[in-house]
This record gives sequence, structure tokens and C-alpha cells, in this order.
Amino acid sequence: MVGQRSKTFDDDLASTLADAGVTMSRHAARDLLAGVAGAPLTRNPDSWVDLIAPGVDAALRARLHSFAKQITQETTDGLDQSPAPPERLNNLRAELARQNLDGFIVPRTDEYQGEYVPPHSDRLRWLTGFSGSAGVAVILANKAAIFIDGRYTLQVQSEVLSDLFEPQHLADAPPGAWIFEHLPNDAKVGFDPWLHTQQSAKTLRTAVEKAGGELVAVADNPIDTIWDTQPAAPIAPTVPHPMEYAGKSAAEKRRDLGAALQKDGLDAAVLTAPDSVAWLLNIRGGDVSHTPLPLSYAIAHSSGSVDLFIDPRKLAPGLGAHLGNGVSVATPDAFPAALDALASKSVRIDPSATASAVFERLEAGGAKVETGADPCALPKACKNEVELTGARNAHERDGASLTRFLAWVAAETPKGNLREIKAADQLQAYRYESDMAQDLSFRTISGSGANGAIVHYSVSEKTDRTLQDGELFLVDSGAQYLDGTTDVTRTIAIGTPSAEMMDRFTRVLKGHIAIATARFPEGTTGSQLDPMARRALWDVGLDFDHGTGHGVGSYLGVHEGPHRISKVGSTVALQPGMIVSNEPGYYKTGEYGIRIENLVTVIACEIDGAERSMLAFETLTLAPIDRALVKPSIMTPSELSWLNNYHVRVRTVMTPKLDATTVHWLEQATEPIG
Amino acid sequence: MVGQRSKTFDDDLASTLADAGVTMSRHAARDLLAGVAGAPLTRNPDSWVDLIAPGVDAALRARLHSFAKQITQETTDGLDQSPAPPERLNNLRAELARQNLDGFIVPRTDEYQGEYVPPHSDRLRWLTGFSGSAGVAVILANKAAIFIDGRYTLQVQSEVLSDLFEPQHLADAPPGAWIFEHLPNDAKVGFDPWLHTQQSAKTLRTAVEKAGGELVAVADNPIDTIWDTQPAAPIAPTVPHPMEYAGKSAAEKRRDLGAALQKDGLDAAVLTAPDSVAWLLNIRGGDVSHTPLPLSYAIAHSSGSVDLFIDPRKLAPGLGAHLGNGVSVATPDAFPAALDALASKSVRIDPSATASAVFERLEAGGAKVETGADPCALPKACKNEVELTGARNAHERDGASLTRFLAWVAAETPKGNLREIKAADQLQAYRYESDMAQDLSFRTISGSGANGAIVHYSVSEKTDRTLQDGELFLVDSGAQYLDGTTDVTRTIAIGTPSAEMMDRFTRVLKGHIAIATARFPEGTTGSQLDPMARRALWDVGLDFDHGTGHGVGSYLGVHEGPHRISKVGSTVALQPGMIVSNEPGYYKTGEYGIRIENLVTVIACEIDGAERSMLAFETLTLAPIDRALVKPSIMTPSELSWLNNYHVRVRTVMTPKLDATTVHWLEQATEPIG
Repeated sequence: MVGQRSKTFDDDLASTLADAGVTMSRHAARDLLAGVAGAPLTRNPDSWVDLIAPGVDAALRARLHSFAKQITQETTDGLDQSPAPPERLNNLRAELARQNLDGFIVPRTDEYQGEYVPPHSDRLRWLTGFSGSAGVAVILANKAAIFIDGRYTLQVQSEVLSDLFEPQHLADAPPGAWIFEHLPNDAKVGFDPWLHTQQSAKTLRTAVEKAGGELVAVADNPIDTIWDTQPAAPIAPTVPHPMEYAGKSAAEKRRDLGAALQKDGLDAAVLTAPDSVAWLLNIRGGDVSHTPLPLSYAIAHSSGSVDLFIDPRKLAPGLGAHLGNGVSVATPDAFPAALDALASKSVRIDPSATASAVFERLEAGGAKVETGADPCALPKACKNEVELTGARNAHERDGASLTRFLAWVAAETPKGNLREIKAADQLQAYRYESDMAQDLSFRTISGSGANGAIVHYSVSEKTDRTLQDGELFLVDSGAQYLDGTTDVTRTIAIGTPSAEMMDRFTRVLKGHIAIATARFPEGTTGSQLDPMARRALWDVGLDFDHGTGHGVGSYLGVHEGPHRISKVGSTVALQPGMIVSNEPGYYKTGEYGIRIENLVTVIACEIDGAERSMLAFETLTLAPIDRALVKPSIMTPSELSWLNNYHVRVRTVMTPKLDATTVHWLEQATEPIG
Repeated sequence: MVGQRSKTFDDDLASTLADAGVTMSRHAARDLLAGVAGAPLTRNPDSWVDLIAPGVDAALRARLHSFAKQITQETTDGLDQSPAPPERLNNLRAELARQNLDGFIVPRTDEYQGEYVPPHSDRLRWLTGFSGSAGVAVILANKAAIFIDGRYTLQVQSEVLSDLFEPQHLADAPPGAWIFEHLPNDAKVGFDPWLHTQQSAKTLRTAVEKAGGELVAVADNPIDTIWDTQPAAPIAPTVPHPMEYAGKSAAEKRRDLGAALQKDGLDAAVLTAPDSVAWLLNIRGGDVSHTPLPLSYAIAHSSGSVDLFIDPRKLAPGLGAHLGNGVSVATPDAFPAALDALASKSVRIDPSATASAVFERLEAGGAKVETGADPCALPKACKNEVELTGARNAHERDGASLTRFLAWVAAETPKGNLREIKAADQLQAYRYESDMAQDLSFRTISGSGANGAIVHYSVSEKTDRTLQDGELFLVDSGAQYLDGTTDVTRTIAIGTPSAEMMDRFTRVLKGHIAIATARFPEGTTGSQLDPMARRALWDVGLDFDHGTGHGVGSYLGVHEGPHRISKVGSTVALQPGMIVSNEPGYYKTGEYGIRIENLVTVIACEIDGAERSMLAFETLTLAPIDRALVKPSIMTPSELSWLNNYHVRVRTVMTPKLDATTVHWLEQATEPIG
């Protein structure tokens, strides 16, 4: 909770609200402002004003916003200030003792199980200091550990006090094994059932019980109890996602979903993934960074009606009308009772995306739970024609920004002082010249030399490096445009690359082309295509340790399912309209990293004489691939012609969108090779 | 049961046994002979004599064997004679009524869940006439259906009276759906729990219960009750598989298995797959066609000791000594009680390979059942150096036979009267010139023209075709040699092939080469490699509807797990020593079929500068690939050099093993191309 406000603040706020014609108690206004402070609101920080005073003039708007800025500043300051980490841990242990618990599990996830969490839910970071996107801490009375994956080995060392939290690798020493080793007999270990999926809770329970202990669901998260400066749950405007970008009305989506539930003999589906809710109801929000989500739950009924559980203060003016009669709105507090009301109904939940608490509540309430895929996941993944047109437009716009950036880097690096952060900032600035850009789709990965070999590198003041001659520079970036989400990686040579770099780059490129040119029968999954992206690397004993591709949303998550191109087996076939990344790479630890990423969409493929219904990919991303790194001698004629044709397309589409200097650079950058 | 013998037969048998010094009652001798008649014993039909009178002279041996021949003839005659099919079905329905059952399920499988069943267990064929390798019949009071897969659509029409058994496609209309549609309320449907895996029983139970009925396990199979001429369970000699072929002693295998069970916290594993038992104990038999199996069960204990359940009359002289002290032998009748004796033990069973009855019995007896993979499957699949040497020798021998055959076909076809059956017979004759050949490893697929497009074509007098100019001829064949099992397919042009045939053949060949030359990191599964075999076909909208490769045993099953190269997801990584087929194909219904199959083994692959432990394939099969069908213009230089190098290897290895005429032909057949 944010601390008490001063009398002056309150009085000023009251008079400003009065000037704006807002009838709202000081208390309510303070609560709203706390929520605003808990939301990122990066590009349009004062957009929240529309929630209470739409149409006020600029001066009043600025006055109102000044209160939010003040609270936001305090909230941000509060995050990393007192108490010191050892005291936080002590306080937690005292609270656990008070609740008769011998331990507690602190995951990074929130109750929506999403990739990005709002500051309110960043409990793992507050407790341990760890700011990575995945991890879990286990706190026992005399011992605590933090479990992270290979991406965060270095980061955990710099962020977390290892005498407080022993760092452990998720894969080598998973929490279960550590618990088994360290848990005293008859210990009670608490967990917050809203922060774990059913599957994750089951794994934990097995481990705790194997160690002779008991896993206990807590009603109140003990961290929330001791975290004095915890930001409020976020309040960012939830706005309509208009037909010109959505392409299909929410009413039609609800009708189709209802019919699909009926067909499966289901009465309802509980949707706990906010991106599913956003897709279904054609709404977007700003509650977390990089994904335009309104954090919310929904229950979709086979009748086609939907119950939406969302803080009503978030709803932009007119959103009720946009949602229409088929959608009822209630606060998130009403969600558990609504689950009880599903007694005796057949209810679909997705075990991989739904909090254990939801499952337990449904079972306890007497619902017939049928686990299965989130019924929005597949239709959301298959973009309609309007969404695809939006994606193409977004990619042209994004490609122009990236091309300008690449030309700028080519001009800047000979001066010898271009650094990673400055580069990332410049790329963002080019993207943000468009009003369509609402956010980056993730924090830009701007890695030169050895930093490029860190797959999820996140540049900081401490790691910032100058782009140097003879090195590679890897930039993985994207933006959230109103009409589409982008994600693109280019790797460029600074100065003259080594023969090895060229060989490796070309093998990665061969893999990229193998995916880009693949034709495959209906029913083929991404995991079947994945090895094609690796074969040229495998030929010389190399590989890369990440998937070849992830699904991408339409002005939604930059990572979405249910499809992917990955070594991990998948039963979801690629289907027309799906957008997926094509991003093979190669990483030489301590030296350089290579990744070539375009987004592609699945299209029908007409072939004369074909006996099967065939599919193929259309490449959406448009930006030159560094010719200086290509070694034509190990490419086939058809690979070379793919590259040259791609560059013709990039040049043709981009030229009208670029300044003369960039066009001049682009002409050279896209010259035929081989 | 075989009918009563005549007085003369009995008297003659008694005096012959006396002459041979065998002290055995007439009754016991008749039972033994019935068992012998129930075994295939193709290559060494009189080998059974060793079971009772080892070392008798040839004349006595022939006299003894004449009794077996007589009973075998009667048994064979009995199989397809009276009663007529409608009467069989009537009798079954009467028996079901007597047992208070409203229906019964008749699968093709036997209690060992294997690919080949002995005549004793061929209940589906006896009842319906259907002789395919997979299928199931469901018999209700007024309706019956037989469910077969796409391979057998035509065959079921010619073999089964459709007014008795409605033919249904397993995939389109599975038994569950048919039962749901046709089962009256409160019906009791019987099934023999020894003939269904736990998974299959579960699927049936769900279907029957959904239809408001009850699935009932029968104690006595009603078919056995009404089948007067049912052959006896097979008795073929079970002999040692010597170290010179096995490479690892049974004692060591048992020790390793015991240690593996201990490591997994298991007390025992129930082995119900006869090939696992045969591998573990280094024994081979002849109870079914094409796979040298002694039908038997075993219980392996974590101590390393094994209980073997097998008809002791099968054991060749000296087998007890071969098995040693760590192996106890009991009759199959003692198996259920032995399962009871596992009460309170942790016991591994493989749910995909174990009869439901075993699972139920273990559970009822109080064992802690842990389902998981058959613990012999993986070590059996990873051949040791001795087995690999055997495989290489077997393939050289087999390749010589096949090469002679191909040369012979080339010489015969211009005469215009070579037919499919004659070709298959000639190929068998060449193979059988070697004493190492014990059997074919499956019935030869000898398909010309449109018959070649039938993936599992089985030639009969009715379908036998002449190999004609302008057609393709597909031969898929193999043998069981004492030192290894082979399986090879060649497709050859008779006369001049069409441009389309050449294009398709070359695409299949490109897929074959893509697998043969693949290098892949440890941990890669066959399903990851599978698409490489299809890409050249996918490029033009074509595909084939079978897996690219199956595991192959070492003088054991020509199909074995746990690995495969298939679209169907697999979690089993390819490991050094595994043998697997590489057999992409293309089939144009009504016109021609193409398949190119070699066996390959997984080997470690040293690559300079490799950062991963890499694996590759060594091709075992040696026989020319028809150059007349190759279209070099669509092959890459490296594909052409693979083909030419392979042909150099074939010529070099084969030439010393062949007659001058064949060598002359081979020289032309292996000339470089491209």
C-alpha cells in the first residue's frame, strides 16, 4: 500500500477534481492514482485521465496527471528502498511463523500466469532482488534458495545476495529435489494457489510429501502482508480494439466460441489468460509492460454470453457499449463466487495456464472440470484477413524503422563510440516516430561481441559495450503497433568479420531459408519443421539451445501459443493465418552471437499436380540481412536466389518509405550476391 | 483340440518312440505332436525331434517326424474347413448366451501382444476369415462388425462375408463409436483380458459404459470353447542364442537389468513381450512365423534373478544349463500365481505391451504397479559390437542374394513372363542357400504396377501379375539370419520408366539420402529427422502415409521399439547401436509404388570443431539402387556423390561374393551417374 498522503496533496487533488467536474471521494481518487502508479503506461502516461475526466482541457489534464506522477515516483522509489533484503527475508520468516508455516514458495508468476507481471505482483523481485522473467524462490526457516534457468546464471549473481538465497539451476537442481534434501520432517510449506498452475502445484506437492511434509495453500499471501510499499494492482485504460484491426466482432467470436463449447459438450470455459480475454472481447489495455493486456478473467458460456471480471475503474468511456449486452462485468472479487455458481456444469479449463486455486474452487463447488486447451488459443492464433493486413502494414512500418537504424549504425560505427544502449534508444526513437507504436513488444536485446552470445541479454549501464571492429552486433527488437506486433533480429558485422563468423552466419541463414521456403502438408506441426533450421549447423557439429520459432499475437503477446517451431514435441498443426517467428541462431560463448529472425505467416500453397493440401510460409518481416556475413560458396543456388529475391522485395517495399541517405545505403545492402 | 487318433496311428507312434528310446506316454506324445503342428517350423520342420530324441539316426528321425507331418496336415486342413462361417458365428452367439453375455470382442492379438500370432491364437481369422495382421471384431446378438485399417480395405472384402461382419475403418469408425451406436442398454460385453492391453481395455470399457453397458472380463475365451479344430499352442524348440551372435551373456544382462530396477526403486519387472524375454535370456525359438520367438513371459527381479514361464517341453536339450542358476523355469500356468506373489513389491509393467489381465492380477494381489517402458526395450535396441558385426555380415550375405535376384530379374523380364509369386520364390531360394537363414523376416512384398502402390501388398494366386514393360516393380523383403535380421526394399523399372516415375523415384531417393547423411546431436529423436525424408516430396505437394523407419532386432523382430523415424512424436532419442530402417516411399494408387529401404545403424560421428556430441547413420544394407530411375538434374552434387559412393561400396563388397554373370550386371548397375 502506498503511504498516507499529505494534507496539501489531498486538498490540491480535491480542488483539481472539482475543477475537472469529477465527483469522486479523495479516498477513491487516491486509490485510483495508486493503481495508475502500478501500471506502466509508457507511451501515453496521462491516458488514465480519460477514465475519470474525458475531454478535459490540456491544462487540467496536466494538473490531474501531476498527482499520478508524484505517486508513481514514490511507488518506484519504494520498490527498491528499505527494508534491506535481509530484513525482508526476516520479516517473511516471522510472518510464516505467525501463520504456522515452515516454508513458503515464491514464484515469479502472478495470478494470470503471464510472461509479464505488474509491479504489484513482482514479489520475487522485491524479496530477492532478482529481476529476470522466470524463477522461483523457496524459503525455509533456516535456508532459502532461488531457482533460475541457464539464461540467468550471471544475472542472479549480480542481483541476489547468495548468502540469503542459494542460487540453483532449475534444470540441474529443481525445487523438488532441493526441498526433498532440505525440508525437515512434518514441515508445512505454504504456497499461494493463485500463483501456481495445477500442474506446478502438483509437482510441488509431490516433492513436499516425498520429504515427509505437507503443502498448504495460503489464503493470504504472506509477502503481501509484509510488503509495506507494495504497488497497487495496475489501472490502465481498457479500450476497444476496433474492427479495423480486429477484423471480427467480439459478438461473432463469442457466438463461435459458444458453438464450439456446445460441440464439445461443455457448458462453459474459464478463461484465465488475459490475452484470451482481450482477443475474445476485442479489448486492449496497459496493465503490464510490452503486452497490451487488461488483466482480467472471464467465464465464457455455451450460450455465447461472457462474464468479464475486471476492475471496472479501468474501463474507458464507452467500453460498456463496445462490450454489448452479451457481456456482464464484475469485479475480480466476484470471480470465486462465479466459479461456485458453475456447480454441476461441464467446465473447460486449461491446466497449463490456469491457477491451481481456480481448479480447486471449481472442484469444491461441484463443477465437472474438463481439462483441455484454452478454447481461444487456436482461433486467436489463426489471424483473419484484416489482422494479416494489419500485420503486413505493421511490418512495413517496422521494417522502415529498422532499415533506417541499420543504415545509421553503418554510418555511426566507424566513429568508434556507438554503444549498445545508445543503439537500442535510437531504434526505439525511430519506431516511436509512428503514432501506431504503443510500446516495444519486449525490451530490445542490443548485444555486441560476447554480449550477443547471451541469448536473452538485457543491456545495463554495467554491461554496456562499444560496438567494435571485427565484432558482431545482434539486435533483437520489436514493437506493439495498433495493427500488429513485430519481432525481428538482425546480426551485423562491425568492420570485417572472421571467416568463422561468416561460416556460422551462413549456416544460420541456410536454416532460416529452409524454414522460409518449406512447403508442408496440412497437419504438419512446427516441431516437424524445426530440424530443417538446424541441419546446416548439425552438419558441422553445432546447434542452438532455443526454439526456432514462437507464435506471435495481433497487437497482443509477442509470445503466444499454441503453435511453435521447436524441438519440444507439439501436437498443434500449423494452420493458415498463424504467425510464427523463424529465428535460428548460433552462439559462441564469450565471443559472438548470431540470430536471424523474421516473422512469417502460414499460407495455403497451390502446387500444380499436388496430391495433398499444402501449406507454406509468407515472410512478413522486411529488413536487409547483412551481405557482409554471407559465404555464398556453402549456399545452394536456390538459397542464394531466396536471399536475392528477398532483398529485391525489401528494397522495393522500403524505398518509398525512406530518406535518400537510407535508400542509398539500402541499395548497396540489397545488391545481389553469389 | 486335434481329433482322436486312430488305433493304428497310436500303435505306430508307440513303437517308433520305443525304437528311439523315448519313454513317453502315447497321450503325452500326441499332445507334443499337436503342439509341434501348431508351430510354423518352416526351415527345419523336424528340429522338434531333438526335444525328445536328440541324436537319433536319420531314419528314426524321419519316422518320428512323419507323425508330426500327419497331424500338421490335419491341423492345417481343419483351419479352413467346417463349420461354415455363418455357423461359427451362430455357435459363438450361442456360447455367449450360455455365458450371459450380449456381446464379445475378438481382437487379432494374442496374450503376448506381438505382431505375429500362432495358429492357436488366430481367433479373428477363424471366426471371420480375415487374415490381415491387425483388426478386431465386435459381435453383438444381432449385429457384428470387423474393424480394419486402410491397408486392408480390399482384403477384408475378399475374405470376410460382409453380411456377417460389417466392415468398418478403424480410424473413421472405431469400435467405440460403433458400440456406442449399436449396443442395447444394460448389455454385457465380454472381452478376454489376456488379449487386450490395459489401454485397449480402458478404451473399450469407456465406450461400453458410455452406451449404458458393462464390459466383462471372461475367464474362458468363448471362441476356444466352440473352436473344435483349434490348433494347439505351438511347440518349437527353444534354443540358446550363442555368445558369438549375442555378444553379451544373459547373466550380465540380468545383472544390469537388476541394477537398473534397483536404481529406479523397483523390485521387479513383468516382461510380457517374448522378444524382451528372448533378448534378456539369449534364447530363440520358433513359435510364430518370421520372428524367432519362444512365446513366454518372465518376471525379472532386482536381484538379477529371473522367473521364466514357458512350456518346458519346448526347451532344447542343454537349455537349462544355458539359462543357469539365476533363472527358474515354470509353466505358463504358474504365471498368475507368481504375479500374486509380488504382493507389496514395486513392479514395473509396460502399459502398451502388457495384457490387461496381468495388470488386474497385480493390482488385486497387492503389488505396487509402476507403469513405464519395458526395461529391456532400450538395451535390446542398442546393439553391442558383436551384434553389429553380425548385422554387417548378415547384410553382406543378404545383399548378395538380393543382388543376384536383381540381376536375375533384369535377365528374366525381357522374356515377358515373370510373375510376382515366382519372383518372390526365387528371392527366397537365393536367401535360403545360406544355412544362416532361418526364415524370412516377413512375407515378401512383391508388387508390380498398381500392386506396388498397395503399401502392405501380399501377393496371392488371385492378384499375381506379370512384370510388364513400362511398369515399376517393388520388392520389400528380408530374412532372419542367426547373426542378424534384414529388411530391404528396392524398386526397379521394367523397361523404360515414365518421366513422372523418375521424378518421383528421385524425390524418394533424395529423402532416403537426407536420412542416410544426417548428422544430429545426441538427444535427437527419429521424429525430428522424419521430415527430412519427405521434404523433396513436399516440395511438389506429395507425401507418403507411413513412417520413415522402424527399429529392427538382432535375429529378433523385424519391427521393434522403442525408437522409430516417424511423424508420430517420439520421446526416445536415437542412440548408438540402434538399427532402424530408412524407407521413404511414394504411392500412386492404381499405377505404381516406390520405396527405397536400407537399414542403418546409429554411430558416433567425429567432426573437427564440433561443439556437441554428434551422431550419424551407417548404412548396413548393400544392394544397387536402380540408376534407370534416377533423374540427376534434380539432385544436388552431394546427393549424387552419396549415390555413386554407395554404389562403389556395394560393388566392392559384393563382387567377391557373386557369380561372373551377376558381377557383370552389377558393374553396369553401379556405374557413376550425374
